[in-house]
This record gives sequence, C-alpha cells and structure tokens, in this order.
Amino acid sequence: MTEQFSPSPLFERVERARRRKRKFKDTQITLAHGSGGRAMHELIEGLFLEYLRNPLLEALEDQAVFEIGNGHGPFRLAFTTDSYVVTPIIFPGGDIGKLAVNGTVNDLAMSGARPLYLSAGFILEEGFPIDNLKRILASMRAAAEEAGVAVITGDTKVVQRGSADKVFINTAGIGVIELPVKLSASNAQVGDKVILSGLIGDHGTTIMIARGELELETEIESDAAPLHSLVQEMLEEAAFVASIEAIHCLRDPTRGGVATTLNEIALSSEVCIEIQEDRIPVREEVKGACEILGLDPLYVANEGKLIAIVSAEVAEPLVHRMKKNPYGRDACMIGEVTAEPQGIVAMRTGFGGTRIVDMLVGEQLPRIC
Amino acid sequence: MTEQFSPSPLFERVERARRRKRKFKDTQITLAHGSGGRAMHELIEGLFLEYLRNPLLEALEDQAVFEIGNGHGPFRLAFTTDSYVVTPIIFPGGDIGKLAVNGTVNDLAMSGARPLYLSAGFILEEGFPIDNLKRILASMRAAAEEAGVAVITGDTKVVQRGSADKVFINTAGIGVIELPVKLSASNAQVGDKVILSGLIGDHGTTIMIARGELELETEIESDAAPLHSLVQEMLEEAAFVASIEAIHCLRDPTRGGVATTLNEIALSSEVCIEIQEDRIPVREEVKGACEILGLDPLYVANEGKLIAIVSAEVAEPLVHRMKKNPYGRDACMIGEVTAEPQGIVAMRTGFGGTRIVDMLVGEQLPRIC
Repeated sequence: MTEQFSPSPLFERVERARRRKRKFKDTQITLAHGSGGRAMHELIEGLFLEYLRNPLLEALEDQAVFEIGNGHGPFRLAFTTDSYVVTPIIFPGGDIGKLAVNGTVNDLAMSGARPLYLSAGFILEEGFPIDNLKRILASMRAAAEEAGVAVITGDTKVVQRGSADKVFINTAGIGVIELPVKLSASNAQVGDKVILSGLIGDHGTTIMIARGELELETEIESDAAPLHSLVQEMLEEAAFVASIEAIHCLRDPTRGGVATTLNEIALSSEVCIEIQEDRIPVREEVKGACEILGLDPLYVANEGKLIAIVSAEVAEPLVHRMKKNPYGRDACMIGEVTAEPQGIVAMRTGFGGTRIVDMLVGEQLPRIC
Repeated sequence: MTEQFSPSPLFERVERARRRKRKFKDTQITLAHGSGGRAMHELIEGLFLEYLRNPLLEALEDQAVFEIGNGHGPFRLAFTTDSYVVTPIIFPGGDIGKLAVNGTVNDLAMSGARPLYLSAGFILEEGFPIDNLKRILASMRAAAEEAGVAVITGDTKVVQRGSADKVFINTAGIGVIELPVKLSASNAQVGDKVILSGLIGDHGTTIMIARGELELETEIESDAAPLHSLVQEMLEEAAFVASIEAIHCLRDPTRGGVATTLNEIALSSEVCIEIQEDRIPVREEVKGACEILGLDPLYVANEGKLIAIVSAEVAEPLVHRMKKNPYGRDACMIGEVTAEPQGIVAMRTGFGGTRIVDMLVGEQLPRIC
C-alpha cells in the first residue's frame, strides 16, 4: 500500500504563484502594474523578460552585475536604472531630484558596489516652472555630493502641456564592485537572520499625506537617503567577524515595502522567512497615519532603508556596527530564514498567532517614487 | 596712430551667442527647450550644467567617456542616456522601441565605443494596450539583436490616465572603447572634410506625416538604424590609410538635424564649417513633404545618419568604404572646415550665394524622438 501524497494548502499556493509567473494575460496596463507588487512581477516576468531575456536580465535583481576586462584587469561593474514619477514632486524631507539620485545610488549599493556615475534623463511638461527645476537640480547636486557620485551624461525632452505630469526623471547608474561579495536575492539560507536598518514606512506615508487628500498634519518626513556607506561598513564588519560572504542578500524595500521585498527573497531563495511583528520598528505617527489612510506599514515604500539576510554568526555584530551609522541608527533583527514552507513570508503577530504576509496585490500606492 | 578695431557683424553674432550661453532667464519650460536647438542648449549650459557641473558632464558630448582600472587594465567606457517621447509611438519604418535602442546605441557608437549593455526604463500610462507594449518589446529585441547589445536592467512605472502620453522609454547605455580614438566635437580642424553618411530628413518627415495633420501619402520611412558597425569600419579604414586619429569628430544629427549638429561642432571647435547645398542628399519626396510642412530638411531629425569630420587625406577612402556598408550607401562629402568666421556654419547655395545656417531656434518639431 502506498500513501497518497496530499499537498498542503500552502504548497498549493506556492505552486500556483509559480505557475502564475509564467503567464501574462492582461490586455491593458493598470496602476497595479507599477505597484511593486504581484501585478508588476507578472508584467516583468511574463512580458518584459519573455521579450528581452538574457542571463543578466533574468537574474531580476535590482541591478545587473557584469564583468569587463581580461585576465589582467577584470572589473565587476553594477548597472541599474529607475524612473521617478513621484507626486507631489516636492514633499517633506525631499523632492523628486533627491529621490532620483538616492534611489539609483541605493540600487547600486545593494550589489556591494561603490556608486561612481549617474546619467539623468528629464521629461518636462511644457509650462513647468524653472524655479521648481532649479530646486530639483539643487537637490540632485546635494544628493550626488553626499553619495560621492557625479551625473556625467544627460538628456532633456519636453512634451506638450497635458502629455506628462510636471516632471519625470530617469537616472541610470554605474558602480564598481571592488570586494568579493556574493549578494543575491536567491542566496538566503536556512538559519540566516533578517536585519532591517531602521524605521519603516516613512517615505510612502509622507507622500500620501503630502497629496493632501486627507487633512493630516504630522512631522513625518521621507527617509530618502544614500545607503552605500552603510553597506560598505557592513561588508567590512562581516569580513572582520567571519567572511564578506556571510552577508547573503541586500535589498532596499522601496515600492511594495518590506513585505514585498521579503516575498521576493523567499521565492527566489526557495525558503521561508519568519518575522516578528513586535520587532519591526514603526514610528507611532506612521502607524497612526497608516491606520487613517488604510495602509499597512509593511507594504509602504521606504527610500533609505535596507534589508540584509546574513549568516547567524555575524548578525549581532552587524546590527551593532550599523547602529553607529546615521542611516542604520535603528537597525534591528526582525526574523530568520527557515526551510518550510518555501516561498512564504510568515509573521508572528503580537497576539502570538502567525499570519502569511503576501506580496502586495493591487494598486495600493501609485506614483510613490 | 592706431587703427581702431571694428568687429564684423559675424564676429558680433558669435560673441552674442557665446554670452547668451552663460545666462538662463526663462521662467517656464517651453517646447523649444526640447527642440535640440538654441533654447535647449541654453537650458543645458545655463542651468543643468550650472547645477551639476563636473569635468565629464562639461564636455557636453552625446556620451560621457571615463576610465576605470589601474595600470594593469585601464578600460575606457562610454555612458549615455536618452528618453524617448516620440508621437505617434508607431510609424513607418519603426516605433518608439526601435528608436530607444538605436538612439542609445548610436550615441555610444559616436564615441568609437562598442555598445555592450542597455538599461530600459518604461513610464506607462494607465490603460495602455498590452498589444502595443508587445510590439514595442519585439522591436527592442530585434534592434538589440541587430546591434549586438543586451538590455540587462530595467524599471517600470505606471502613471494615471492623463498623466503621461501612452509610453515614454528611457534607455541608458554602456560601451567599451577598445581603440585609441580621439573623437570630440571640439576636435574639428581647419582643412578637415565633412562627410555625411546618407540621405537626410527621413525620420523627422516620417513622424510629421504620421501625425496625420496633413493628408500626405508618401513612401518615406524613418531611417532609424544602428551605426556602430559603420563607425568601426570607418575607424579601421582610417587606421589603414593614415591613422585612427584622422577621424576627428563623429556625431549623429538627430533633434535639430544636420544644421544644429554642424553648429555645435563649429562652436565647440571654434572653426567655420562650409557646406555645399547641392551635395547634401535629400530624397525628392522628403524635399516635397518638407516644403508642404514648412520645414527645412537641414533641421529635420535623422535617426540613422552620422556626420564625420576627418583629415582631408582620409576623406575619399572613407567615403568609398562607407558606401559598402548598408547604412553608409549614400555617404558623401558635403563640405570642409575653414578658419573664419569662427563658430559659423555657412552654406553655398545652388544659386552661387552663401547663407549662414544658424542653430535651430524655436520649436519646429516637438516630440520627434
């Protein structure tokens, strides 16, 4: 007599999610396709990747890493791009220019790269005030100086009034990976610890409040910040305590928030990520605003935070070291990597229960970055 | 007795143009700021450069060239970006996807680089039909395959209906410069010859007709094409005949057309460029359409043509070699570089006269690429 295999409901969910990845049947673009969540992943994996497939794109990291050179001087370079369409373009704690520099600097930093050069492509709406453009350029200059990068090539397009909303900025970035890092969303290993670099939800909440649809007055500001120096210090610390390879994965939880980023890692590494709700630092004001706005801070975008998946033996010293960096002051361990169920993020709630934290579905926060 | 210096009217014009470069007093963005012409140069030099200034950006070439590495393996890389906002997005001879790949490939090629990798950032309008997106992606794939490049990193943003016009695409590109080229818009030298790789005005005229404002039916198609193989053959030929450094400057005359590109070179190299009207190849159909549209083909955008400024001794062999490449079939010499008046492009007309060919002023052709 053979025992019949009956898959658990969780197993079936993961399988369904996998199969879904390979199909793309929508007929129109919706706001959900830009959300950072499930619909966007389906668009990217089901369409963009189908048409433009190559081994580097296929990795689906936030940046591509390639080598250039020969036996004498091979260099590992990171290359990334992001368009910024945030509205409003100016908000507490920053503006679209600050985002455009830091966002791309951070995507480079998450590969362990030292950011070097940026490009900047502006799409401007006819009638856009030059004073606003000056403010944005001043922010970009300040952010570039802080991050130690230079904008070395650019482009300007103007479209008729009504054909774009004020200003969109694309930045692409090049960085050099000088250390023997092995960082990937597919590199999380059972037993690893999950580190978060600080308070979550500040950026997305700030933007939603700045839209003024609700008359909320708060002191919350966008957390937009460059994270490459924090990453360099983490790599240094890991190398000192154990090995640079003890850091397995780095990601900045922007669109879709911490929940979506952890889901990407869990799926990509085929592991389960267990986090503890009471360990996730959220400002009281953000919690309150999110309640009023009907948002879950776990899904709200951050622009100056990172998640690190690291070997257990380096986790404590890393958090200790991160706390000394202004952008890692509130770093903490929020969970760990387990074997089963694969591809799932599970959260132990304050009440002692466990709930599945799914990828963002739908269009919670359009034009957040 | 000293003779009083009385500057010529031309001298005064050049000086006025120079002074103008340093001031930017507009208060709003207008379509002219995206035209490729004078207003755009004032915006870039008077504002973007003022805020983001660094030696690489300052060169104001169509791509930045930087070195990476040490004594053992220094590599020269080219980096460029362009956003594409063309309307209509699909037109005879191509679509926005084909443009987005070839435009960036060509900006790399003009530095003598072998294009390697592209990034692609999409800004999509809510409601955009997936079938159109599939067509664009298929074009990008085909163009990337033809040019031997891969799109290795990307980004997708979606904005609400009415906040963008269908789709905007940004591509940034990285190429490697393997040959000891010295190419710059500031490198044109007195005695040099001016080579044009083929018929002008096809792309811009196609787009204007495709907008359907005039009921014109023609067979004209966009000339969008990758030019890196043509450039590599030109460099090879120059090295064979004299030296690779005999090619002084390469530019693709896109927005603003041949007239604007030659003006940029004349100003940057502080020389005069004299061209002959009857040598500039223009399709009869393009001439006719431009007359009806009120356009001058010299100012109309090309997306598969280049201008080369080269030492006289290599000019003939270069044209001969270019004619063997499908993208240089109609290559010809159209003029030469002289000393005075500096910063001016002069054209000998069919009637034996000479007229000044100024930079594009105003907003002749919005959203042409």
